[in-house]
Amino acid sequence: MIREPRLVEVRRNVLKHNDVLAHELRDRFKEAGVFVVSLVSSPGSGKTMLLERTLTLLSGNYRVAALVGDLATANDAARLARSKVPVRQITTGTTCHLEAQMVTGALDGWNLSELDFLFIENVGNLVCPASYDLGEALRLVILSVTEGEDKPLKYPTIFNSADVAVITKIDLADACEFSWEAAQANIQSVRPGMEILRVSAKRGDGMDEYIAFLAARLRDAK
Amino acid sequence: MIREPRLVEVRRNVLKHNDVLAHELRDRFKEAGVFVVSLVSSPGSGKTMLLERTLTLLSGNYRVAALVGDLATANDAARLARSKVPVRQITTGTTCHLEAQMVTGALDGWNLSELDFLFIENVGNLVCPASYDLGEALRLVILSVTEGEDKPLKYPTIFNSADVAVITKIDLADACEFSWEAAQANIQSVRPGMEILRVSAKRGDGMDEYIAFLAARLRDAK
Repeated sequence: MIREPRLVEVRRNVLKHNDVLAHELRDRFKEAGVFVVSLVSSPGSGKTMLLERTLTLLSGNYRVAALVGDLATANDAARLARSKVPVRQITTGTTCHLEAQMVTGALDGWNLSELDFLFIENVGNLVCPASYDLGEALRLVILSVTEGEDKPLKYPTIFNSADVAVITKIDLADACEFSWEAAQANIQSVRPGMEILRVSAKRGDGMDEYIAFLAARLRDAK
Repeated sequence: MIREPRLVEVRRNVLKHNDVLAHELRDRFKEAGVFVVSLVSSPGSGKTMLLERTLTLLSGNYRVAALVGDLATANDAARLARSKVPVRQITTGTTCHLEAQMVTGALDGWNLSELDFLFIENVGNLVCPASYDLGEALRLVILSVTEGEDKPLKYPTIFNSADVAVITKIDLADACEFSWEAAQANIQSVRPGMEILRVSAKRGDGMDEYIAFLAARLRDAK
């Protein structure tokens, strides 16, 4: 039987190691001039469809690439490959989140200075990815209208670890009786002042504003 | 910097400890004659609404109670209390899954022999809960039509750890262009022969069959 403190100690060491690697990644991204955006959310929130549209829309004007994390399949990389930009899959096995060293490994052989944007799609999980810095400049937390307005209250840490909230599948908002007021109030209560974007990657609502937001963040970072 | 093998070793010990406690729980449930059903799913799959309807529908003919796991809030327990059956919240803090010892702790003071059904709602997470036996007799994995048909392929372990799949929010199937054939094929490919139920807790579709299924499982266990 193991005593709890030892597990906590080991976890703290893993996180510390991750923070060192994430710091190195952040320096490397900055030096190469690539703006790195990560996406976190629960499974099925529409991350991959949003990312596919994002890559397609940005690739007309910017040099973009993506890393995509998944437990078991390369389905997402296959879907994202339709956007015609470089995409690599990180298969995590039974690990429920991406870690900085997985990102470092997946970048092997890529010349980052040839990119404007690099997107990193985390494993679908609203808990564990919150604790792992990946060296990104911007972390988007994705919340679909079908999940309900209470998710920020139930998973506050992931909302706190993110910079901006993106509400997806807004074409289904009426069918789900989604309350914008409740969602906004819940997000603001766990993360006061958090910027919130609304999109339907399927129908196109809000995508122009979302792409303009990313482009502005890239300009600000230069 | 920690070496990977030590972490793995610690995790194995934690699981072994959990298995011992889960075994004790299972013996205790059997002796008391209570049929224990756990629910696992991603956040926002409709677990809590399904459970609220389940408790209400079963409570006319059976003695039922529920434990509900969440990171941060007691929202779910408050929702489930509307069903007028005994409900206790397990707040896990930053732990992304329930463990057997949390269940043992939450049962303190309850006379299990006065119950027919005990439901345990896990934290919303398609990864980590797969590894933790809670002593339940039946584990339901919940998949909402809004999450997409590919979830079984992307999170195979949780489907393998469960006994039966319940597809929820079927009132939204058309709006989401959900493919029953693809969902069934994906479930069967990771878990051949798995029984699949379909419900809309909101509109009532499939709820009679679902309640009859639970009642039959209780009878079989007696």
